Amino acid sequence: MVRCAIVGGSGYTGVELLRLLHLHPEAEVVAVTSRRHAGEPVDELFPSLAHAYSLRFQEPDPGRLAAEAQMVFTAVPHQAAMEVVPALLEAGCRVVDLSADFRLRDPRVYGEWYGPHSAAGLLREAVYGLPELYGEQVASARLVANPGCYPTSALLPLVPLLRAGMVAPDPIIVDSKSGASGAGRTGSVALSFCEVNQGFRAYKVAEHRHTPEMEQELSEAAGRAVVINFTPHLVPMSRGILTTIYCQPAQGVTTQAVLERLSSFYAEAPFVRVLPLGRFPDCAHVRGSNFCDIGARLDRRTGRLILVSAIDNLVKGAAGQAVQNMNIMWGMEETLGLRSLPLHP
Amino acid sequence: MVRCAIVGGSGYTGVELLRLLHLHPEAEVVAVTSRRHAGEPVDELFPSLAHAYSLRFQEPDPGRLAAEAQMVFTAVPHQAAMEVVPALLEAGCRVVDLSADFRLRDPRVYGEWYGPHSAAGLLREAVYGLPELYGEQVASARLVANPGCYPTSALLPLVPLLRAGMVAPDPIIVDSKSGASGAGRTGSVALSFCEVNQGFRAYKVAEHRHTPEMEQELSEAAGRAVVINFTPHLVPMSRGILTTIYCQPAQGVTTQAVLERLSSFYAEAPFVRVLPLGRFPDCAHVRGSNFCDIGARLDRRTGRLILVSAIDNLVKGAAGQAVQNMNIMWGMEETLGLRSLPLHP
Amino acid sequence: MVRCAIVGGSGYTGVELLRLLHLHPEAEVVAVTSRRHAGEPVDELFPSLAHAYSLRFQEPDPGRLAAEAQMVFTAVPHQAAMEVVPALLEAGCRVVDLSADFRLRDPRVYGEWYGPHSAAGLLREAVYGLPELYGEQVASARLVANPGCYPTSALLPLVPLLRAGMVAPDPIIVDSKSGASGAGRTGSVALSFCEVNQGFRAYKVAEHRHTPEMEQELSEAAGRAVVINFTPHLVPMSRGILTTIYCQPAQGVTTQAVLERLSSFYAEAPFVRVLPLGRFPDCAHVRGSNFCDIGARLDRRTGRLILVSAIDNLVKGAAGQAVQNMNIMWGMEETLGLRSLPLHP
Amino acid sequence: MVRCAIVGGSGYTGVELLRLLHLHPEAEVVAVTSRRHAGEPVDELFPSLAHAYSLRFQEPDPGRLAAEAQMVFTAVPHQAAMEVVPALLEAGCRVVDLSADFRLRDPRVYGEWYGPHSAAGLLREAVYGLPELYGEQVASARLVANPGCYPTSALLPLVPLLRAGMVAPDPIIVDSKSGASGAGRTGSVALSFCEVNQGFRAYKVAEHRHTPEMEQELSEAAGRAVVINFTPHLVPMSRGILTTIYCQPAQGVTTQAVLERLSSFYAEAPFVRVLPLGRFPDCAHVRGSNFCDIGARLDRRTGRLILVSAIDNLVKGAAGQAVQNMNIMWGMEETLGLRSLPLHP
Repeated sequence: MVRCAIVGGSGYTGVELLRLLHLHPEAEVVAVTSRRHAGEPVDELFPSLAHAYSLRFQEPDPGRLAAEAQMVFTAVPHQAAMEVVPALLEAGCRVVDLSADFRLRDPRVYGEWYGPHSAAGLLREAVYGLPELYGEQVASARLVANPGCYPTSALLPLVPLLRAGMVAPDPIIVDSKSGASGAGRTGSVALSFCEVNQGFRAYKVAEHRHTPEMEQELSEAAGRAVVINFTPHLVPMSRGILTTIYCQPAQGVTTQAVLERLSSFYAEAPFVRVLPLGRFPDCAHVRGSNFCDIGARLDRRTGRLILVSAIDNLVKGAAGQAVQNMNIMWGMEETLGLRSLPLHP
Repeated sequence: MVRCAIVGGSGYTGVELLRLLHLHPEAEVVAVTSRRHAGEPVDELFPSLAHAYSLRFQEPDPGRLAAEAQMVFTAVPHQAAMEVVPALLEAGCRVVDLSADFRLRDPRVYGEWYGPHSAAGLLREAVYGLPELYGEQVASARLVANPGCYPTSALLPLVPLLRAGMVAPDPIIVDSKSGASGAGRTGSVALSFCEVNQGFRAYKVAEHRHTPEMEQELSEAAGRAVVINFTPHLVPMSRGILTTIYCQPAQGVTTQAVLERLSSFYAEAPFVRVLPLGRFPDCAHVRGSNFCDIGARLDRRTGRLILVSAIDNLVKGAAGQAVQNMNIMWGMEETLGLRSLPLHP
Repeated sequence: MVRCAIVGGSGYTGVELLRLLHLHPEAEVVAVTSRRHAGEPVDELFPSLAHAYSLRFQEPDPGRLAAEAQMVFTAVPHQAAMEVVPALLEAGCRVVDLSADFRLRDPRVYGEWYGPHSAAGLLREAVYGLPELYGEQVASARLVANPGCYPTSALLPLVPLLRAGMVAPDPIIVDSKSGASGAGRTGSVALSFCEVNQGFRAYKVAEHRHTPEMEQELSEAAGRAVVINFTPHLVPMSRGILTTIYCQPAQGVTTQAVLERLSSFYAEAPFVRVLPLGRFPDCAHVRGSNFCDIGARLDRRTGRLILVSAIDNLVKGAAGQAVQNMNIMWGMEETLGLRSLPLHP
Repeated sequence: MVRCAIVGGSGYTGVELLRLLHLHPEAEVVAVTSRRHAGEPVDELFPSLAHAYSLRFQEPDPGRLAAEAQMVFTAVPHQAAMEVVPALLEAGCRVVDLSADFRLRDPRVYGEWYGPHSAAGLLREAVYGLPELYGEQVASARLVANPGCYPTSALLPLVPLLRAGMVAPDPIIVDSKSGASGAGRTGSVALSFCEVNQGFRAYKVAEHRHTPEMEQELSEAAGRAVVINFTPHLVPMSRGILTTIYCQPAQGVTTQAVLERLSSFYAEAPFVRVLPLGRFPDCAHVRGSNFCDIGARLDRRTGRLILVSAIDNLVKGAAGQAVQNMNIMWGMEETLGLRSLPLHP
């Protein structure tokens, strides 16, 4: 039984970790922190958890957390994670960090997009926790940087094709559409029901911070620097990301070849479902689950390849992937706590 | 391991049973039938189930089903269930019927609201499968009539109070609001996205067929004939029922006394959550789970009691309750396969 | 051409007034105030208004407003309206106040539900601006108290029946369901997209402030004190209120008689549509318009009457009714600026 | 007063035409046809229109229509329009056809994407009714082919830039997202509330029929053959299209230059709103109106230009544009009947 703590448990990632870990047969949540809600029962903030958790939010005290827990999920905002992670590691915890603070290996790139890094020394050690690509390194990691939701949706379809030289590293256009929970549990007019419902908009056009994270991993896969276009959009739904990718296949590559490459690359990956020819994913078919569904089609008229992927941004895009990483870190079956099927409808 | 079959598995109740039973450690789905989709893989119709089920829909043949399965869930429309259930019972299966065909004990009442009954002889034997009220009878039943979604939401708050004489049997007004999945997986203009989204309407005012089912059980609890007002409404959401009940408390009854009565009545019921004073349920806090949340408040100005309950109509209102009944029928832990927490947000 | 000003124009009522007045052939908006957004172009806050308005929000200065405008709509919160309305009246403006500050004729009742009143002397003068009931008084009023959204939806079906003695004054149960814009343009977690979407909840059970407003007008209609149950609910849609009312008809009253009474009462009312026998309203069929749709059915089994009404809470429940009042106050055609049909789908 | 008829008035385009024409001071609807609903009052099918229309659907008889109407809107499916339009023209009516039947000038292209054309002789005569591009030809046209919704959203931002040589004709990637009303008023499981709500999916990937229509007009603007990628997606909202376009700007072109070109091109166009630098459109800000909002940004990192446009697919993408065409055809003010501002929220 792995004793787990969640640092920063009052957001949607926090409640999702609690939801998932409740079904986990080998993990137990022993502490959840929140400065703002310290002392409050977790099920008062999240009535959905009533009768399942009798924990109260506590102040985030690394020493106390290390005494209670072996495994810590840090679900605080970027810039805050770098303040707490080093102390947790020193105290002997293993950490999956769900913020952006340890995803970029180059501190200069981090600095450019996020600001100064106070724990840059850990950037080399941190393992980028996309288990389908880095499972081996995750297994022995002390610190796992859980990928961003958009990067997860873009990398899973693209990396196997780039590695195999089946698509060119340029141009790559990533057009993503996300549900509102990606913005977090927050009270702002722009994310109020009336402003999101019945609307659809692009945001942070050509300036979203997940861009360098994708480029880092795509460059790694391509073996050369990759620069992409990335446009996120806000969909009037609570959960889910659908990503549509446009890229240039190598000479002679067919839709069938793309699907076969993806299927064989993910043959042992329990959470990636490559769809048959002619079928495309729908956020509705992954909601609440850790699946990433992928479809592909080469447009013969333009010669470009269209890849489409769907994930639940709070599960495969955040809390579920974190639990998957924990499972691998502790030598457990990768799917423990993650076997729930999508909630449809 | 209980071998299960689902008859009529191509609707939302069918896919929900498949979702829930996938997580059940002691049950296995060996057959799913659908006349219309016979031969088709279940995950072609329901892509959410891909990688979890390799079954194909088959024709509903009672003999073959009985040979394969011990436990059958019939999820066909009313009037169709009565055609298939007798053969299944004769062949030795135990049955949880999710239609309305075996819920009413009086065939004349059935006739009035639904039409002629071709298996009226089974009405006396069938157990009304609201486990919180009839758990003991369910345990030994051959045929369980799974309650309607609206009745489940109305009976759980009302029955303990009527039994205790804490509310008067008249007037009782049940004002219910349901998500669109209650109408089934169906292609009709009235239930198309554009007609439901951004709308809200009452329907079948003073003539919904769940009325006599509620009255039967409320009368049983009150020890005298109860006649109620019941108005269902359609909410632009996929899942969930919220029911608001107006009734007359007995002299001296307080909000606190009502909450205490409910809490003590459901002390051993794993799926009923009575909310603390001042809190009321939200469909968002039970979605995807088998919980029924209940809140109450006595309006001192009018002297009337307001009860509010929330369930997921496809889980506690249908498939989840059916699995709960199965668990009890086979002497298993009541919560097996049903421990998932609500999906929020 | 009536010169209009809007005080407190940065909320949903403000933008709705701007939307409606843009189509009004005899009114012109000359000023919009907002302390918070003073200096900002209105179409920066509300991009939907771009190319239609070149106004900027200004500070609310009664003297300046009176110099520019003949007619002022005050759309500030209760307790704030009472601070600004007296000065506007003194400066010679006519005012339609959309807050609750001048709706209750009895300052003690106001005090009980809202707090102390600093302009109680105006309560007797203010006309309750439900034009279908008080059109004549509105015509000559200096100060019109625009009704609350919920009261509008409950009073239009009930008042004609109470006046005619066709329903008893007790019990009256008003079960209302409102879209999220009723809570205003506000950034709070509870009203964020993720918390409202796919949820449904009752709120302020037995304590909503619109209760005394309904009771005042129902008592007036019944000729005796009326006390009601009122429960509001939050629907995952942006606009619309559906109200379901349960009451006791007088001996011999039929559904047909109810519909005839309503039809004849509203024969000259351009915005009330009494639906034919067997038809019930849907918020989707009034969205964006000033209509109130009403349906009725007597439940023969219980003898109770069910009334159902639908309005757009921002139009007939707020800005549209305010424009209707303005039209009457200035002797214009009642429907000017309000002839848009509902936006469906 | 122009006497108008609508052929095929029982879909969402039909009800939208009725909604818009009701506000038109110089047009009057004298007939609406529907084979299926012939004899039925239009407000029985569309309760939103009650009290505004007393028309009944009639059988589509060209002779009778021509006797009653000067102007006919044909809103029947493609392949059906070509059957009725010739007779209407011969009978002397002027026609705006909202189907795809007269949009493609080359009958071979039509044949490839839609099937055989029975009135190919009219293809040369028909004017492509995007008034911002072809207003002059529309003015004198007997037959106007109202553009598709997706093409409208893609052509308005792209054509002025292609004409000016500011973007290259290849590659052009059009990633569009549409609300559900684009699929029409139809009862299919795939478009039921439960299947669309909380989902997001691409459809007809690399095979949508609006592709050749865009290519025809883009080729015209570029002066050479243009082949594009076009991917439509289904958004869980009722109305609206947001289109995100990726293309290659000419050397030295800046975001500012793009916005200036668009602003000056549309300086006299009452329905195109070019947003200021740094702002992007939202479907919520055009809903119910005839506006097309456009934003642009050049991504300096990749050198590609991102254009984003938003329209209401039923207004600027169908009925509103049809009314705009009618206004031009009859020498009326282009904005008559179309001055309603967007409904927000």
